[in-house]
Amino acid sequence: MSRKAKNILFIMFDQLRYDYLGCAGHPTLETPHLDALAAKGVRFSHCYVQSPICGASRMSFYTGRYVHSHGAAWNNFPLKVGEVTLGDHLRARGMDSWLIGKTHMSVDHEGMDRLGISRDGIIGARVAECGFDVFLRDDGLWGEGPKGFYDKKRSPYNEYLKGQGYEAENPWQHNANAGVDEDGNVASGWFMRHADKAANICEEDSETPWLTSQAMEFIKTQDAKGAGPWMCHLSYIKPHWPYIVPAPYHDMYGANQVLPVVRSEAELQDTHPVYEQFMQNEIGQTFSKPGVREKVIPAYMGLIKQADDQMGRLFQWLEETGHINDTMIVVTSDHGDYLGDHWLGEKDLFHDPSVRVPLIVYDPSEQAEATRGTVCDALVESIDLAATFVDLAGGDVPDHVLEGRSLLPYLYGQTPDKWREFAVSEYDYSATPEAAALDLDPKKARLFMLANKDWKFVFADGGFRPLLFDLKNDPDELNDLGADPDYAEIVGMFMDRLSEWARRPSQRTTVSSEYLEGKRTGSSSSVGIFIGVYDERELPPEVVEKTITYK
Amino acid sequence: MSRKAKNILFIMFDQLRYDYLGCAGHPTLETPHLDALAAKGVRFSHCYVQSPICGASRMSFYTGRYVHSHGAAWNNFPLKVGEVTLGDHLRARGMDSWLIGKTHMSVDHEGMDRLGISRDGIIGARVAECGFDVFLRDDGLWGEGPKGFYDKKRSPYNEYLKGQGYEAENPWQHNANAGVDEDGNVASGWFMRHADKAANICEEDSETPWLTSQAMEFIKTQDAKGAGPWMCHLSYIKPHWPYIVPAPYHDMYGANQVLPVVRSEAELQDTHPVYEQFMQNEIGQTFSKPGVREKVIPAYMGLIKQADDQMGRLFQWLEETGHINDTMIVVTSDHGDYLGDHWLGEKDLFHDPSVRVPLIVYDPSEQAEATRGTVCDALVESIDLAATFVDLAGGDVPDHVLEGRSLLPYLYGQTPDKWREFAVSEYDYSATPEAAALDLDPKKARLFMLANKDWKFVFADGGFRPLLFDLKNDPDELNDLGADPDYAEIVGMFMDRLSEWARRPSQRTTVSSEYLEGKRTGSSSSVGIFIGVYDERELPPEVVEKTITYK
Repeated sequence: MSRKAKNILFIMFDQLRYDYLGCAGHPTLETPHLDALAAKGVRFSHCYVQSPICGASRMSFYTGRYVHSHGAAWNNFPLKVGEVTLGDHLRARGMDSWLIGKTHMSVDHEGMDRLGISRDGIIGARVAECGFDVFLRDDGLWGEGPKGFYDKKRSPYNEYLKGQGYEAENPWQHNANAGVDEDGNVASGWFMRHADKAANICEEDSETPWLTSQAMEFIKTQDAKGAGPWMCHLSYIKPHWPYIVPAPYHDMYGANQVLPVVRSEAELQDTHPVYEQFMQNEIGQTFSKPGVREKVIPAYMGLIKQADDQMGRLFQWLEETGHINDTMIVVTSDHGDYLGDHWLGEKDLFHDPSVRVPLIVYDPSEQAEATRGTVCDALVESIDLAATFVDLAGGDVPDHVLEGRSLLPYLYGQTPDKWREFAVSEYDYSATPEAAALDLDPKKARLFMLANKDWKFVFADGGFRPLLFDLKNDPDELNDLGADPDYAEIVGMFMDRLSEWARRPSQRTTVSSEYLEGKRTGSSSSVGIFIGVYDERELPPEVVEKTITYK
Repeated sequence: MSRKAKNILFIMFDQLRYDYLGCAGHPTLETPHLDALAAKGVRFSHCYVQSPICGASRMSFYTGRYVHSHGAAWNNFPLKVGEVTLGDHLRARGMDSWLIGKTHMSVDHEGMDRLGISRDGIIGARVAECGFDVFLRDDGLWGEGPKGFYDKKRSPYNEYLKGQGYEAENPWQHNANAGVDEDGNVASGWFMRHADKAANICEEDSETPWLTSQAMEFIKTQDAKGAGPWMCHLSYIKPHWPYIVPAPYHDMYGANQVLPVVRSEAELQDTHPVYEQFMQNEIGQTFSKPGVREKVIPAYMGLIKQADDQMGRLFQWLEETGHINDTMIVVTSDHGDYLGDHWLGEKDLFHDPSVRVPLIVYDPSEQAEATRGTVCDALVESIDLAATFVDLAGGDVPDHVLEGRSLLPYLYGQTPDKWREFAVSEYDYSATPEAAALDLDPKKARLFMLANKDWKFVFADGGFRPLLFDLKNDPDELNDLGADPDYAEIVGMFMDRLSEWARRPSQRTTVSSEYLEGKRTGSSSSVGIFIGVYDERELPPEVVEKTITYK
């Protein structure tokens, strides 16, 4: 059977750290199925997300553009109408673009109304779904409080569970993400003391297996229709919190498999004011308490182990159906999880546990034979995937719209011309309590990271000093050199790079570089526009023929 | 009769220098009607356009956003669909937005097709006209060459002329913008040696009187319908080249009324490479030849004199109809004209003759009494007009979309809080022969100006040194200090400001500052999202009620 990437299975986990895979060197967590995929493909060891938060990061994945370019800079900031999506690019090249799972996309209703785009038509439906055709949309956060649900949409997953006989009003909340305490009460996974309980659900009904089944269902449907080529975004909510997992994964790992925490007392001295605010938030404080990591991380590892098992199930099925030979498989995450490292929880800032993500790309094509099982340490940004997929679908990558670069050359064993010299990530915390505590103008509560293999530089707008880490000598990023005058030159170099990056013509999206170069002949005289010509007799008669008439 | 600004007459001339008005100090050019408007309103002496070229500058006027934000960075780069226009803002506040004349706007057809926006509907028609309802669109450049017309649309002005009995195939070209030589041949105004001839047209049929009549017709139509309030953009092509004007204006000024050229031999030494390229283009070369300014500038002055007379006619009519009491009148231009100063012609760069424009704002309202006849020297940008109009139309100015500031406080004699400290202008020359000569990447052929009253700084991307002028000691901008190490600190300060400006969250247009500040309470627990909570017993029971159930 010939092997060629025709379809793309673009798998995203949520909040999966770059280093929580066996193939990435985790010493106690086993992920044999993802490791096997890495052994058949290329693992990119230095992949950075464009923002260490779901919504902003994902909008970059789905537009192939920096957060500063698309503007949907935090969770639930609507993606402005007019932004060109991966789906737009792929469909223009004959490839469908499907969604199964989470996008965290908010609709720019005001923009759609302004432009009269109906949500009922196919165009409007895609605009409202970030360019995807929806096989299934479920963002996986069905929390409900006194002011109602966080997510106002319907949950296909809750509907599934109810169909399976789960009787809770919100089985996502009360079964999939909760255990049962000694008295038979719901012990919600939202509260970290319950992380070691088994979720009160059959394992095969939990979120990750359910979504995996949906993916197989999708592919069967496409096959039955003879449809394709397709790009399918299979987007899991896990191992994102609530940190709780069904049996047998809930006690597969214990405290002695938890990695030592990466933090230092020095980080608590003269801490950068923005960093300090995030340390002081509830999750930073909670993760810094004795015993919390040991309680929570085994659940996080269990969720990953379950995910790996589901990958095994899916990859086996792709083997059986032959799709392993015609489908590019990509596995990544939208950001990581501090898990107590650096006195922090969640993500938001730019230490490696937060901003770096796993990236494995398997390409069945013959051209990719030479690179199978290799690790590529180029500085990769998550926006490179959109460019890669467009490249695979065919035709030039429109670099006046897409800001990433295709990874296909790396897969094919080639060295791309002038690769980027640093990766950029951004964090807009203007809508957070941390910004309130710092009394920041919403236009100034923003962080910009620039990193290469030697340095990680973080510029904090609003009048703060920068942060700087010497990655060669301090790979754990424990010693912030941002205030050290000995490093002023490095800081200055990064400030220049940041300025250059910020100036890029990211909105000049209606004209291509080819168009611009083609216009440089200054040929306006051919359409009768003469600028600075003193005497028509200097010009060939045919050029002025329409302009002058002679008696 | 009560006096209050209800409507807005937003008058734009094309290529009108800031200093070519009597009220701005021109010693030989008389503009009594515009001077009279200035005497009733406020003249802003330091108004900068966002780009010294028609298309980019106008897209900033019409969106209220920097060129770096809207991306339509040069003539005929389509304005990307999704950009919110002045018309959108005003209509949302109950004010109509009408066009009479020129916009130089190119349609993003690809974007409209992608979003399924029909050009036949009212929404699509407005999207295709930069947010305006069109009373009349005529961009005023009907040149024709061997490859056809520069502008593919129909010309209402040519239709008018044909209706008046002009028999040429293209009377714009052969009558309005051409004289007749001694042999009776068409002596085209495109060629500067003919600038002293009278255009072969009745003065009242020439472009400026014709468009002025259209404006009166428009207002009559609105009055007859009882329509309004309205903002009407009355947008003239003149005094833009071709430099030729009908009698009696063609010989109203002579060589002895032409201002001395502002240039120096020093400018030809160690010239900045980008500046040097523009000096070497045909119009720079032509204007630098002896006698050319003396031939051309009297025609340019005649065009302005004619414009002023038409303003007199229009203002008189507004008096007679009473509209002078209910209409804000704004007069400005899209950029200036070097006219040989600094060895340059046209515009494109950032010396005052190019980047500064006249701005007179007359507001009939009572609140504006105290400022009548005053000159305001605040640093004003052309994007301030959109904010001003939105402010006048009512409601808050949405500062997450509009990047300018309302000028109403200045009109009302107030001092706005924290006014800008420098004005920004940009020039994208990526599609020009100058970029080709410098062999520049299209993403790097870009200039950024930052100016205040003391300094003008121009950053030239692509590896060039900056330009710097000491405006206090060198108001004519003849001595470029950009390479002088004594000014490294000033250069560094402006580089920091440029970086800060470039980082601004210009695309975060779907969430307001008020929204962001309102989210800072971190109230996700109210919708059942708990981040970092270890023990639910720490929380009030009503907050966790939906999350936990007890047996």
